[in-house]
Amino acid sequence: MVKQKRIAVLTSGGDAPGMNAAIRAVVRAASAYGIETIGVNNGYAGLVDGSFRPLDNRAVGGIIQRGGTILGSARCLRFHTLEVQRQALSHLQAAGIDGLIVIGGNGSQQGALALHRLGFPVVGVASTIDNDLAETETTIGADTALNTSIGYIDRLRDTASSHHRAFIVEVMGRHSGYLALMAAIATGAELAVVPEQDIAPETIVAGMLDTYARGKPHYIVIVAEGATLKAQDLVEYFQQHSGSFEARLSIMGHVQRGGSPTVFDRILASQLGAAAVHCMVEGRAGMLAGWAKSQVNEIPLEIAVAPCQKVTPELLELAGVLAR
Amino acid sequence: MVKQKRIAVLTSGGDAPGMNAAIRAVVRAASAYGIETIGVNNGYAGLVDGSFRPLDNRAVGGIIQRGGTILGSARCLRFHTLEVQRQALSHLQAAGIDGLIVIGGNGSQQGALALHRLGFPVVGVASTIDNDLAETETTIGADTALNTSIGYIDRLRDTASSHHRAFIVEVMGRHSGYLALMAAIATGAELAVVPEQDIAPETIVAGMLDTYARGKPHYIVIVAEGATLKAQDLVEYFQQHSGSFEARLSIMGHVQRGGSPTVFDRILASQLGAAAVHCMVEGRAGMLAGWAKSQVNEIPLEIAVAPCQKVTPELLELAGVLAR
Amino acid sequence: MVKQKRIAVLTSGGDAPGMNAAIRAVVRAASAYGIETIGVNNGYAGLVDGSFRPLDNRAVGGIIQRGGTILGSARCLRFHTLEVQRQALSHLQAAGIDGLIVIGGNGSQQGALALHRLGFPVVGVASTIDNDLAETETTIGADTALNTSIGYIDRLRDTASSHHRAFIVEVMGRHSGYLALMAAIATGAELAVVPEQDIAPETIVAGMLDTYARGKPHYIVIVAEGATLKAQDLVEYFQQHSGSFEARLSIMGHVQRGGSPTVFDRILASQLGAAAVHCMVEGRAGMLAGWAKSQVNEIPLEIAVAPCQKVTPELLELAGVLAR
Amino acid sequence: MVKQKRIAVLTSGGDAPGMNAAIRAVVRAASAYGIETIGVNNGYAGLVDGSFRPLDNRAVGGIIQRGGTILGSARCLRFHTLEVQRQALSHLQAAGIDGLIVIGGNGSQQGALALHRLGFPVVGVASTIDNDLAETETTIGADTALNTSIGYIDRLRDTASSHHRAFIVEVMGRHSGYLALMAAIATGAELAVVPEQDIAPETIVAGMLDTYARGKPHYIVIVAEGATLKAQDLVEYFQQHSGSFEARLSIMGHVQRGGSPTVFDRILASQLGAAAVHCMVEGRAGMLAGWAKSQVNEIPLEIAVAPCQKVTPELLELAGVLAR
Repeated sequence: MVKQKRIAVLTSGGDAPGMNAAIRAVVRAASAYGIETIGVNNGYAGLVDGSFRPLDNRAVGGIIQRGGTILGSARCLRFHTLEVQRQALSHLQAAGIDGLIVIGGNGSQQGALALHRLGFPVVGVASTIDNDLAETETTIGADTALNTSIGYIDRLRDTASSHHRAFIVEVMGRHSGYLALMAAIATGAELAVVPEQDIAPETIVAGMLDTYARGKPHYIVIVAEGATLKAQDLVEYFQQHSGSFEARLSIMGHVQRGGSPTVFDRILASQLGAAAVHCMVEGRAGMLAGWAKSQVNEIPLEIAVAPCQKVTPELLELAGVLAR
Repeated sequence: MVKQKRIAVLTSGGDAPGMNAAIRAVVRAASAYGIETIGVNNGYAGLVDGSFRPLDNRAVGGIIQRGGTILGSARCLRFHTLEVQRQALSHLQAAGIDGLIVIGGNGSQQGALALHRLGFPVVGVASTIDNDLAETETTIGADTALNTSIGYIDRLRDTASSHHRAFIVEVMGRHSGYLALMAAIATGAELAVVPEQDIAPETIVAGMLDTYARGKPHYIVIVAEGATLKAQDLVEYFQQHSGSFEARLSIMGHVQRGGSPTVFDRILASQLGAAAVHCMVEGRAGMLAGWAKSQVNEIPLEIAVAPCQKVTPELLELAGVLAR
Repeated sequence: MVKQKRIAVLTSGGDAPGMNAAIRAVVRAASAYGIETIGVNNGYAGLVDGSFRPLDNRAVGGIIQRGGTILGSARCLRFHTLEVQRQALSHLQAAGIDGLIVIGGNGSQQGALALHRLGFPVVGVASTIDNDLAETETTIGADTALNTSIGYIDRLRDTASSHHRAFIVEVMGRHSGYLALMAAIATGAELAVVPEQDIAPETIVAGMLDTYARGKPHYIVIVAEGATLKAQDLVEYFQQHSGSFEARLSIMGHVQRGGSPTVFDRILASQLGAAAVHCMVEGRAGMLAGWAKSQVNEIPLEIAVAPCQKVTPELLELAGVLAR
Repeated sequence: MVKQKRIAVLTSGGDAPGMNAAIRAVVRAASAYGIETIGVNNGYAGLVDGSFRPLDNRAVGGIIQRGGTILGSARCLRFHTLEVQRQALSHLQAAGIDGLIVIGGNGSQQGALALHRLGFPVVGVASTIDNDLAETETTIGADTALNTSIGYIDRLRDTASSHHRAFIVEVMGRHSGYLALMAAIATGAELAVVPEQDIAPETIVAGMLDTYARGKPHYIVIVAEGATLKAQDLVEYFQQHSGSFEARLSIMGHVQRGGSPTVFDRILASQLGAAAVHCMVEGRAGMLAGWAKSQVNEIPLEIAVAPCQKVTPELLELAGVLAR
């Protein structure tokens, strides 16, 4: 057992609900091992600039239910160079820090991998609404983002009662259609337009006509921001090609990154944060604390950041059957 | 007292949360007077086509908390001609209906006024999220639409922590900036762009720089759909003129029309629905049941549909002072 | 115009959602007048102990949407003696404070009145979920507390489908049945048991039988905590006297004091907080900023703390008609 | 493949959010196989009385987001006798039904097992907020019930700021402490009192004193309804033994059974409902569709209804570490 004396924790990339719960779990689990925790401000930018703050058990009180991240998060393009990475390490060493926990998604864990390869003990915590890390079925924040989406889409259904309209909702998810597809299944939306499966706009208009012919009272299409067919373009297609039919657009935007985390995300964050400390203390650096088969899964960082596919043919088929 | 035996009720125009609570109040208040109520399907379209359904106390059970309208609502362009209006009246008379209650906003009450001028007893109930009727301070649905908006804008604030971004949120409200301004005050957004007050995009970028200079952690702009400066155009302006700054867009869309009504809207709907029946029974047709000075206000329909101004200089000033 | 240089603000009594929005409005409105604001910790207890903190525009950023109060609130029994009140004044004067704003309900404004009578300039802001101040139709927090209640009661209705049950919900409100009655109207509950109107348990059981006979699918009773007939006793009465019928109990408790404030409460708090500063600056101390006839109402403190009656016969009758 | 022509579906036991989503999935998955679905009203009572209704794809439209169950649910004590079970079977056979899907928890699946043992093809769907079925990690409704709980407990935390109080919240869960423990972890409550672990009231008072000594601003205790130490008794203990400290009580009650289901419950219900039909069609009757290791798990009914333990020592320890 290689026990650290002082570890640092940072949150990086797009905010995800539950990041605060993960910070809290890291601090309190470390404290139970007698390890001190230092917070890094604004992600890798704070690491490069040596912007730190002490975190004790009281400093992370009252944050488990808060959206956003108390440590801040920022993009840090300069972190891609070796020189800047070494600068970050020198700040960590100067502060007597002998381990780092990185809470974030794919891009953030690539930074963690870089530091690990320079020999510094790093453990990742899978946290992003985009659910874009391999070997972890879900990531902290995705459940909350989905619940935010369905609150929004359920409201649309209340009012989407005209047989001469399509409602188009753009949701986030970067290169993945995961959020779009799950939101579609969960709301009974008629269609999810995802990067993983191409669909022509004329098929969508035909789908609307068929849907109304079958007696359904609305036609709601969830479009992933990463899909080839963009939500805005689909709306324009309807205006030009669908006769008296019109399409109304909602763009959820960063709304999905905020909000108080759900039970699932709070407990996932609590478990992964504590597991990351455990993993560090037991000397297994270079790993990501993720979630698979209903339990904590330790995944080597280089595997975790590889491309992955969360939209399965089974889920696509289920969506189709249940939307009939 | 000119007591009706059978009245009809319809909902018209864009859905507003609380319309169901108003229908329920009409039916049960009428029932307390011994009057039967007939529901008209799909607004004026159902009136023209004679599409009716009986409504008793049980038929309106379990709907007070539901968004949308159980009667449906549709646009009916053909209702603007006298011939079609007379056709509607003949359906009402054939069904033994001697009074009509119209639940809706400005456009809907213009239809009500037309029927009233043809001599049929009509009473309106002020219900629209756009709050676009005169002499009624608020209308059924506006409070819920605003609470829906702030739920989403609060989420944005959780995540709007980068000093290099502006968050642009488009909200509804048709020709009025009321929803945008009230949402801005209620969320502490930095600016509301409303039809009632012109603002140049360069002023908005300058405002962002000043806001960040004063140490505020975010810059959120609420844009009314009816404003001269469109949300989408503002986003493009940022892309072209603000250097490293970027603007992220959310478009709420019809989401604001849905959702379970708030306490305020349920009670307003309960009071206005009951008051409309009372007004009808006492022989004061041609009126709108609205809300002013914290009580029911009976407003002649021709006054209610006149242009009105709910965005006051005082509210605009308050927004400015409190956003500092 | 008697312009202050430095004013203090405190929150007192039970927490009410919107207190933070009121603190923010006081600070920023004062700042617009060039007046500095000092926060008093933990209500009158902090005043007696001289526990102060400076508040500037940035210190009240990000709090408009938060429940609770950043200043804390505590009961302070010793404040009832003249000696202790003088001690409080000496702390205020020692800190160079020449005005005090008290955000709270009836008990809190009695403290404000005591200080005013000792010659110190005090202005109150009406804020309590109990809505127990006279000449102000509503108070900051009541709308949010009601919306919290209906979220709770609507969920009960989803499941209250057995014809052999009564669901009893105890809500807060101290000596007033206002919250109970409004929640009952807004949820379509079958009965509100309020302090203002006595009802025997046998009448309630009979009401349940009649309700089910009329075909309603549930029987929900909202009991004010201040009612003569206690919720717990009503449940026991059902157990002993209603044969196969049973009653299930929910006690909301302090849940109603928390949560993010609604639009109505945020805007009310923004307007009343700003109005209190305005009132102070114009030299009208000894007043309460309240709300009546849809606008700010300045009420002399001695009138505001007199007994008042918000449960009217009209509202009781409306509840009865609409629950049929 | 033993393909059915017409199957029946019922919901039984306490309502669970997501039951409607499960009904919808059963109907539409069956429809995709060309199988007709008949709904049974009010659980086993409707089976005994032959109270059926046809369900097609349109009949289950617009219900995925609704709490409760459109089919109704009722206790049916008489179903325990063999004679009554045979009566139920004769109704099924008379209606040409050759398979039954039972959506419910432990008690309901015991009924399903009884019918299966009489030779009728039955498949269960794990749905109960109590999460009391073996070999399925979670059940439809538990996630929503937990999210409802934390919405209320978070509100308590907003206001639970007095160092002289304990807040006691009673949650459901029948014989299990699962809901209480998960809610405690998710809200950062200081203690969960569960049936699986005895605790003396004096330990709880001592815990409160220690908690406040460590600087935490509140002391919230979640008590499972099935715990040996009852919430009401704990409140009384505080009144008698804790000096100036007081305890405030909230009883959530049936509130936890209602509400719109979460994403997790909607998707779980969609998958389990479809899987149950699949299981039936493939001739594997006598099974329960549950969830384990992040996928559908088919569990023999006699195993599923055996006693199970979802409160693990690991979760109890995590709760303790994170509440420091």
